[in-house]
Amino acid sequence: MLFNINEERLKDDIATLSKMIDKSYPGYTRRPFTKYYKESRGWLYREMETLGLEVYIDAASNLIGKRTGKVPSLAPIMIGSHTDSVIGGGRFDGIIGVLAGIEIVRQLNELDIELNHTLLIVDFTAEEASEFGISTIGSRGMVGMLTEEQLSRDNLEGLKLEKGISMIGGRPENIQNEALQKGDLSLYMELHIEQGPVLDKTENDIGAVTGIVGIRRYKVVIKGQPNHAGTTPMNMRYDALSAASEVILSIEKVANQNYEEPAVGTVGRIFSKPNGSNIIPGEIILEFELRSISDDVLDQMVQFIKEHIQSIKNKRDIHIEIQELSYSDPVKINFNILHGIRESCKVIGKTIDLPSGAGHDANQIAKIAPVGMIFVPSKNGKSHCPEEWTEYRQVAKGVHALANALIYFDTNL
Amino acid sequence: MLFNINEERLKDDIATLSKMIDKSYPGYTRRPFTKYYKESRGWLYREMETLGLEVYIDAASNLIGKRTGKVPSLAPIMIGSHTDSVIGGGRFDGIIGVLAGIEIVRQLNELDIELNHTLLIVDFTAEEASEFGISTIGSRGMVGMLTEEQLSRDNLEGLKLEKGISMIGGRPENIQNEALQKGDLSLYMELHIEQGPVLDKTENDIGAVTGIVGIRRYKVVIKGQPNHAGTTPMNMRYDALSAASEVILSIEKVANQNYEEPAVGTVGRIFSKPNGSNIIPGEIILEFELRSISDDVLDQMVQFIKEHIQSIKNKRDIHIEIQELSYSDPVKINFNILHGIRESCKVIGKTIDLPSGAGHDANQIAKIAPVGMIFVPSKNGKSHCPEEWTEYRQVAKGVHALANALIYFDTNL
Repeated sequence: MLFNINEERLKDDIATLSKMIDKSYPGYTRRPFTKYYKESRGWLYREMETLGLEVYIDAASNLIGKRTGKVPSLAPIMIGSHTDSVIGGGRFDGIIGVLAGIEIVRQLNELDIELNHTLLIVDFTAEEASEFGISTIGSRGMVGMLTEEQLSRDNLEGLKLEKGISMIGGRPENIQNEALQKGDLSLYMELHIEQGPVLDKTENDIGAVTGIVGIRRYKVVIKGQPNHAGTTPMNMRYDALSAASEVILSIEKVANQNYEEPAVGTVGRIFSKPNGSNIIPGEIILEFELRSISDDVLDQMVQFIKEHIQSIKNKRDIHIEIQELSYSDPVKINFNILHGIRESCKVIGKTIDLPSGAGHDANQIAKIAPVGMIFVPSKNGKSHCPEEWTEYRQVAKGVHALANALIYFDTNL
Repeated sequence: MLFNINEERLKDDIATLSKMIDKSYPGYTRRPFTKYYKESRGWLYREMETLGLEVYIDAASNLIGKRTGKVPSLAPIMIGSHTDSVIGGGRFDGIIGVLAGIEIVRQLNELDIELNHTLLIVDFTAEEASEFGISTIGSRGMVGMLTEEQLSRDNLEGLKLEKGISMIGGRPENIQNEALQKGDLSLYMELHIEQGPVLDKTENDIGAVTGIVGIRRYKVVIKGQPNHAGTTPMNMRYDALSAASEVILSIEKVANQNYEEPAVGTVGRIFSKPNGSNIIPGEIILEFELRSISDDVLDQMVQFIKEHIQSIKNKRDIHIEIQELSYSDPVKINFNILHGIRESCKVIGKTIDLPSGAGHDANQIAKIAPVGMIFVPSKNGKSHCPEEWTEYRQVAKGVHALANALIYFDTNL
């Protein structure tokens, strides 16, 4: 083994960032553009400088440490993630991906390894869902995908996004000019917690991410007749909640079918009108989403669900309407990248392929460069909560796998 | 035919009361203890006096007009309903039952008919659900079923129920002393709109009410695991909403079975936590109710539903708990009373037997006397809304049937 990843050092780094939080919330909260965020950014900036990196902040306010490679003609390899958290979040989501970059540079320095490629370590700004109505703000900006309209949005304190970006050293007016283009990066890699139960339940150490799911969100409006629950016989009812129940179970059934790629489907939201104890439900609104790394699978699922809905409509003589709410494209990891990552992981621990069910900064960077991701286990599948946990030895294995992948791609890209 | 019910006079009376409303709400609103209520009560008082009735207000504030019969040893027959409405209600619910009493006295006077029984025409106070947390306030009071605690409750304006009762002439302190006891009435009869679609859809004129349903209300708490909708594979989920959907459909299925008496079952309320678009629903609370005039049927339904819930729990390995929220006993109409009412209706129009799916003042009076009810059609089954409608000729038929029943029971009780 080339590397000897220092688990204690990673643990200390995680502990350091875990103190730079807004203690008015439970758990570990570090929202972007707050004083806690500036504090952690300051610490990261100094760590990067200490390691001899050329540190800068790009137009979209991402913090970047640059380690120049031997071959100037090769586009850089970038490694990173984010250090912002959700409110009431945990200590690992995003954070270990940035600290992995720091630890890998330390190792490269200690082992005196000079890479062919320039290495960029990045802390993306504001990856998590925000009051600005978008997530992955920094990575969007890095590839020029932040619109004027988005930049002018306010958060609950009345802070404009462009003002937030300026406050932490970005130059929102230059985002378009400085946007990375195809060819500007050889590869982007990210280590992240799985945020799901698969690695933990199957007792695997590492996940080689096959892709990031596309997400399709839909609204279903079901209109029955809100009649009196006592005086309306069963055979004269148009019960929107009973119809909705059939829709919910049909979505579950469709998501449970076998497809060429894994898929999930979830009815996360339900709204009922008038929701009175003695009135037959008159209107139900459902919101559901489907996720898969295959657009074909998503197409099939939507088709099946529409067929089910049609038969529920016919059977119950009730109004059901389905509307698309939003759409994000799946990211499929390039075959050679996945192969390189998988092989780099296998020498470190028990590895399986799995899709990422959540979105990441890699979604954005995939628009201009190949991307690869490595997952480490989330205990009981929990994330975005104070109990979010990954054993330090598991974090270290993930960092080691990422370091291996870097060495592999440095000579193979 | 003995009677010649005056449809125009009924129409005029309905129109008169339809003007004594709180116009700050849509439709026809006459809440108890308001100035609109006092106005309509004043009008009724004068109408009763004009007809030669001995008019008085009982301890519970019910307005009563008494027409003394020939045989003092016979306990009175009472006819009536209520003139309060829900907010945004209609012109017929309750009102036609009181006006039927007025019209019948007019007919008796015009035809110079002296009854054996003393006849009481009653306008019960506050039949509809109220901010005091109870309905059928006046009829409860008439039979001594208003507790001290209930009398001391406040409405949203801070008016105590006992104060409201006093304001319209009641003597809350005497409610217990003056409560009617078994034997104090020979019979109570009420004409009411069906508030359901059966008579209208089956094109019948009159319903002979077989009983007033008992209502059992339950709460179902379903606890799953609120995991990430993207990262949790289908086979590792504990989705409370999917489980709830099976519960809802099982309740519908149980209510759709054939029993010895008609029954309905309704899941009227659903609450979902956390109700987020990308989170598997973690907790669902349902509220459902079952109604039938047969306690045996209600027992069977509850048993079937519990069996379904047990199998859903087993299949999904999810927590489901069922709690009883409230319980009201069914009122079965005495065989002879139903027979007399049915025969009195049949000579007037197309008549069917049907249960009352809603509660009425008759529920309370049934505690001390035999009761009977007659329904007239509700157009499209609508009630408690401005569109509530019954054709005047249908109202007149109902009044005529009630008058026939009065004559029948006057000689047969």
